[in-house]
Amino acid sequence: MIGGGKDAFIGAIHRIAANMDGLIELCCGALSINPDVAIDSGKSLFLPEDRIYTSYEEMIKKESERPANDRMDFVTIVTPNFAHFAPAMMALDHGFHVVIEKPITFSLEEAKLLHQKVQETGLLLCLTHTYSGYPMVKQARAMVKEGVLGKIRKVWVEYPQGWLSKLSEKEGNKQAAWRTDPTKSGKAGAMGDIGTHASHLAEYITGAEITHLCADLNALVEGRILDDDGNVLLRMSNGARGVLMASQVAAGEENAVKIRIYGEKGGLEWAQHEPNTLIVKWLDQPTQILRAGAGYTGWLSSFATHNCRTPGGHPEGYLEAFGNIYRNFALSLAAKIDGTTPTPEMLDFPGTYDGLRGMAFIENVVASSASTEKWTTYTL
Amino acid sequence: MIGGGKDAFIGAIHRIAANMDGLIELCCGALSINPDVAIDSGKSLFLPEDRIYTSYEEMIKKESERPANDRMDFVTIVTPNFAHFAPAMMALDHGFHVVIEKPITFSLEEAKLLHQKVQETGLLLCLTHTYSGYPMVKQARAMVKEGVLGKIRKVWVEYPQGWLSKLSEKEGNKQAAWRTDPTKSGKAGAMGDIGTHASHLAEYITGAEITHLCADLNALVEGRILDDDGNVLLRMSNGARGVLMASQVAAGEENAVKIRIYGEKGGLEWAQHEPNTLIVKWLDQPTQILRAGAGYTGWLSSFATHNCRTPGGHPEGYLEAFGNIYRNFALSLAAKIDGTTPTPEMLDFPGTYDGLRGMAFIENVVASSASTEKWTTYTL
Amino acid sequence: MIGGGKDAFIGAIHRIAANMDGLIELCCGALSINPDVAIDSGKSLFLPEDRIYTSYEEMIKKESERPANDRMDFVTIVTPNFAHFAPAMMALDHGFHVVIEKPITFSLEEAKLLHQKVQETGLLLCLTHTYSGYPMVKQARAMVKEGVLGKIRKVWVEYPQGWLSKLSEKEGNKQAAWRTDPTKSGKAGAMGDIGTHASHLAEYITGAEITHLCADLNALVEGRILDDDGNVLLRMSNGARGVLMASQVAAGEENAVKIRIYGEKGGLEWAQHEPNTLIVKWLDQPTQILRAGAGYTGWLSSFATHNCRTPGGHPEGYLEAFGNIYRNFALSLAAKIDGTTPTPEMLDFPGTYDGLRGMAFIENVVASSASTEKWTTYTL
Amino acid sequence: MIGGGKDAFIGAIHRIAANMDGLIELCCGALSINPDVAIDSGKSLFLPEDRIYTSYEEMIKKESERPANDRMDFVTIVTPNFAHFAPAMMALDHGFHVVIEKPITFSLEEAKLLHQKVQETGLLLCLTHTYSGYPMVKQARAMVKEGVLGKIRKVWVEYPQGWLSKLSEKEGNKQAAWRTDPTKSGKAGAMGDIGTHASHLAEYITGAEITHLCADLNALVEGRILDDDGNVLLRMSNGARGVLMASQVAAGEENAVKIRIYGEKGGLEWAQHEPNTLIVKWLDQPTQILRAGAGYTGWLSSFATHNCRTPGGHPEGYLEAFGNIYRNFALSLAAKIDGTTPTPEMLDFPGTYDGLRGMAFIENVVASSASTEKWTTYTL
Repeated sequence: MIGGGKDAFIGAIHRIAANMDGLIELCCGALSINPDVAIDSGKSLFLPEDRIYTSYEEMIKKESERPANDRMDFVTIVTPNFAHFAPAMMALDHGFHVVIEKPITFSLEEAKLLHQKVQETGLLLCLTHTYSGYPMVKQARAMVKEGVLGKIRKVWVEYPQGWLSKLSEKEGNKQAAWRTDPTKSGKAGAMGDIGTHASHLAEYITGAEITHLCADLNALVEGRILDDDGNVLLRMSNGARGVLMASQVAAGEENAVKIRIYGEKGGLEWAQHEPNTLIVKWLDQPTQILRAGAGYTGWLSSFATHNCRTPGGHPEGYLEAFGNIYRNFALSLAAKIDGTTPTPEMLDFPGTYDGLRGMAFIENVVASSASTEKWTTYTL
Repeated sequence: MIGGGKDAFIGAIHRIAANMDGLIELCCGALSINPDVAIDSGKSLFLPEDRIYTSYEEMIKKESERPANDRMDFVTIVTPNFAHFAPAMMALDHGFHVVIEKPITFSLEEAKLLHQKVQETGLLLCLTHTYSGYPMVKQARAMVKEGVLGKIRKVWVEYPQGWLSKLSEKEGNKQAAWRTDPTKSGKAGAMGDIGTHASHLAEYITGAEITHLCADLNALVEGRILDDDGNVLLRMSNGARGVLMASQVAAGEENAVKIRIYGEKGGLEWAQHEPNTLIVKWLDQPTQILRAGAGYTGWLSSFATHNCRTPGGHPEGYLEAFGNIYRNFALSLAAKIDGTTPTPEMLDFPGTYDGLRGMAFIENVVASSASTEKWTTYTL
Repeated sequence: MIGGGKDAFIGAIHRIAANMDGLIELCCGALSINPDVAIDSGKSLFLPEDRIYTSYEEMIKKESERPANDRMDFVTIVTPNFAHFAPAMMALDHGFHVVIEKPITFSLEEAKLLHQKVQETGLLLCLTHTYSGYPMVKQARAMVKEGVLGKIRKVWVEYPQGWLSKLSEKEGNKQAAWRTDPTKSGKAGAMGDIGTHASHLAEYITGAEITHLCADLNALVEGRILDDDGNVLLRMSNGARGVLMASQVAAGEENAVKIRIYGEKGGLEWAQHEPNTLIVKWLDQPTQILRAGAGYTGWLSSFATHNCRTPGGHPEGYLEAFGNIYRNFALSLAAKIDGTTPTPEMLDFPGTYDGLRGMAFIENVVASSASTEKWTTYTL
Repeated sequence: MIGGGKDAFIGAIHRIAANMDGLIELCCGALSINPDVAIDSGKSLFLPEDRIYTSYEEMIKKESERPANDRMDFVTIVTPNFAHFAPAMMALDHGFHVVIEKPITFSLEEAKLLHQKVQETGLLLCLTHTYSGYPMVKQARAMVKEGVLGKIRKVWVEYPQGWLSKLSEKEGNKQAAWRTDPTKSGKAGAMGDIGTHASHLAEYITGAEITHLCADLNALVEGRILDDDGNVLLRMSNGARGVLMASQVAAGEENAVKIRIYGEKGGLEWAQHEPNTLIVKWLDQPTQILRAGAGYTGWLSSFATHNCRTPGGHPEGYLEAFGNIYRNFALSLAAKIDGTTPTPEMLDFPGTYDGLRGMAFIENVVASSASTEKWTTYTL
């Protein structure tokens, strides 16, 4: 693991997610750019002293020198956005598979290079777009693909948070500080941090891509540099129209990702606050409540059931969704190592193409917001 | 009552709403442009035969010739959009107050003339924007006005319906037929029918006005002429950003008006599906559930309590909200007749200015949708 | 109307419910035992002076002396429990139909006499057990009757309120005072006031009767005389087991009537807080949400659709449920007057047998609570 | 781990829960009484071959012979109820701490002996009553303890499941087979399997104990031997009255544990289906929604925050609640090993006294159900 030392939020999440199914074991780490923190963090995670590194370069180099059966299998990169690209490229160059926190890189250019590198090396790269790890998100995708709703007409995705309602970056909030600083976060604030999740969710479930957008991004808290709120009109490759909303100043909201999709015959609604439920609405019959892990057979896609650990009524949450991405990556990796063929369900985790589109989304949405033209053509 | 004969949806609703509180009695009617239907409908409503009229002209003329203490006090107009203006003008010219179903007229021009006429005559005109009749909508408005949320930053209003997901206007659905026909409905479809409700709700609660908008209207059902779906970016006079969504092809949705408003300190959420609840979200304390009719004192505004008929836990709904508009109109009218001063709570019903803005909303949103410019300045 | 003067809660509710559909007009009243209040209340309701009476005896006598086509058609009795029986008997004796607020009488004995009188006279008596007026309660009853759930195994009905959590009867709360006073309310407190609603709901929906019960009633607020809380185990004539809970000291609850019924194949859940929804749970398929007024055909019983005034998504509430009871009574009465046959849907309103069972429920539950035997056989 | 081989439900859950926080590592196992299954299961969990045992006796003996720093620290017992006692006693006798799936033993007698043994040895025994691992359950307990609700008056706990609505034990369902077989499950069916959870939850949150109960247990599915449904009236040591319901034939329900508690000043409601929410109802102010992991300070007890891994809006579920029990056990164990003092938050996991009460609950509830006396005094 690179990054994720003490006080880092997402590093701890990655470790829980990776631990969950007993398929992955943390064996080494370069957990901070601060050597003291790196060492201290490594010790508190019970890492062997000789595998606590103080830089990612050292880790990748030394691990690659270890015997093949006693080195790390892959690298997880959980540093801030600006420090994703270099370790990822180096890891791939040394033959290590990679798991990377989103957004994949700092710029679209880096994302393209990384995508190319993954294709050249044939190694696996997994991008932790958590929300696509939820079983009922996968169920939604499967239902759209099977045509249950008919042609899709409308996509309505929203991601309201409230935690940046004050100018917290000036009040010692470390999480706020780097996320609102363009030199660390990139061109966009809320749109990069959470808008990319919303965009990914919309494209993942519909199986279509955004082709045009019209964005209104704003920094609504006085003194903030990057956008903390944005509303975007969407046109998609399947003809659907839509709206994407992402806000970090929706005071009182926690992390309320929600998506609604409407087709000719019905609609789907999924909200992360109750993630084990997929609401299925119909033109000509009562609304149905599909539940993760439910006992009724024939209703849930194999992509949903593969990603449940418990029977219905035992709520699984964010960590399990995160764990599903790790689990599928690990199963695909194991299959690769064993020379077997992973199932489509195992291979269903986000990769560099998703990362590339995430970076392109940021570029396009920022460009659109600055433009007086209504529609910006989404370019990759 | 003009219009509202057999088979008409909204006429029956008006009668229930007007009856509810025992303040209003139906005394005469010109209930259909078809004389047979008019007479038949009048009889089935127990109207005296000599006050069943076959045209609004006849009704207004004959009623105005009756003794002052035995004529109708006001006229309710529940005809399709294109037939609002003429009877309203004639009624006002003959000294009758008017209640009118929204949208107020067929065109902005008519709305302006009507607004002017009301101001000249000093008569009351009430526009039945139902959703502003709900007590918890009034509570939301009062809380915003009192500054409870601080400066408002974001408005998010949506109105999804699914009933026009098929080309029903070609399949004998009378309600669908006139609403999707530009010669009867006006320039806009969904935006006129329900988008105006959403726009009114946003402006009513925030006490601010839309100043700029960027609209994407579409006819998503093949063969339809007017918009059946639209997404609109908003900028408001209080600096808030927002989105307005109105759709009649959100398959499986009933009539799901919902609004969320976020300020510096917290947010409000109100949905018509559970209208007796106002969710109040806070930055620094747990979310609260405010309930119509609740026994706790000091939390509910006089505007909310004035519009409740029952204690908490006895759900009031759409008809009561509609009834509140009639009740406030009737109380204001009674005060006018009695020469007393109506309270601010009584006077809190929509009028011609709201109607004017509704028509302007349609004009502006249609213009914006046709434009390649991102922002259209909202003009009245 | 007898009772229901100024400050009375339920009288105003009855008037709104009766007005709602334009089928019933208030023509006279003896609105209070206090003559001044009676007169004052009558005037404020625009009653003609000669039909404002100061006692029910006077009203019934004088009205029966008026010409047949100009007298009241029926009497509504909304006095406290102890003053139901005498006016009801007198009205029936004078040939007037009766609507009566529940519980039907003060004692089981009175209820039996009244039941007998109704059968002898052939007149209509309607008991306003409001909750059975909701369309989705009728839908539930229809589904059980059709056997959709298979044999019913379990009934779980609850009615928590919180408004008597303090000793309000000693603090000037008039509603609390008579309800907690055995000389006015009868043998039971919460069980009489709301437990009877719960019991009626359970029997109405299942179409079965309670045969045995085991009750634990308590006065949980110090100083209170009658029960303010009770839990009752049930055995029913269809073999189902169940629980009935009624409490007026469930602090923070409003009026949260809820019932769940489980059969071999599935379950139903209805809660008054969201009365337009019936949740249908299945063993072998996803839960469904049935909605009052919904556009899908073939799912809703004629008993449900007959009792809806608006399309799906226009919430109807407590007053409409109350109105449905009046409307069905009025339609049945009109049919009787016209010599036509009312439909089963019209005749579906509670009557003296329901009232009788309500009184018997009180007797049995109080007896059981006092007994050391586990099971008390329910006797009528 | 003893038990929990292939096809076992709860064994896999224990492993995920134990893995989650990186504090516990599975080092050996006697995973099935079938040696082939035991070996096969061990291999698939990557256990070293010499630590895959085919009986718990072998495991405990051999592990205790290993060097102190290379043997298992504790034993997890996840066998069916009848096979809990013997391995637990043997483990304690050999100095191993124990984690045990509930119910703690097959009989009350065994539970007493085990409780005594734990007290004699001073070793830790953790009983996995999962629901008390949820942060918002701990919050509820803390609030009751602090007196926020005033004196507690009413407890209302329910646990409906529907999965035994058919005679599945005769249709090859292994989980159903042992749970409905008195020789494997004990005296009670649903009451043992899930009623004990409900009872534990009620006592854990209120900090009070059941003193009297009145039970109606039934086998509602024809052909079933043990109870599959039961309703129980409760009296508690704090004077509260209550009801406990547990059913496995509530067709269409998943695993819907829910508890409501009312005191003089307000009420609490927690439901496992939305476990991150605690609803707090008040007599004199709006209902509040307390959320696990929420950012507002001063509202959540240290017992709640200690048991959250993520910020508000990242739902944690059943596995995390299970994980909390393991985590607190592991932290307490680590403190014991390190010679430090565990915090009260760490020590907050169920133990033998809870297990003892669970067994006593079964005894008492079965005795009460068989009795014609209304109240059975709860004896330990």
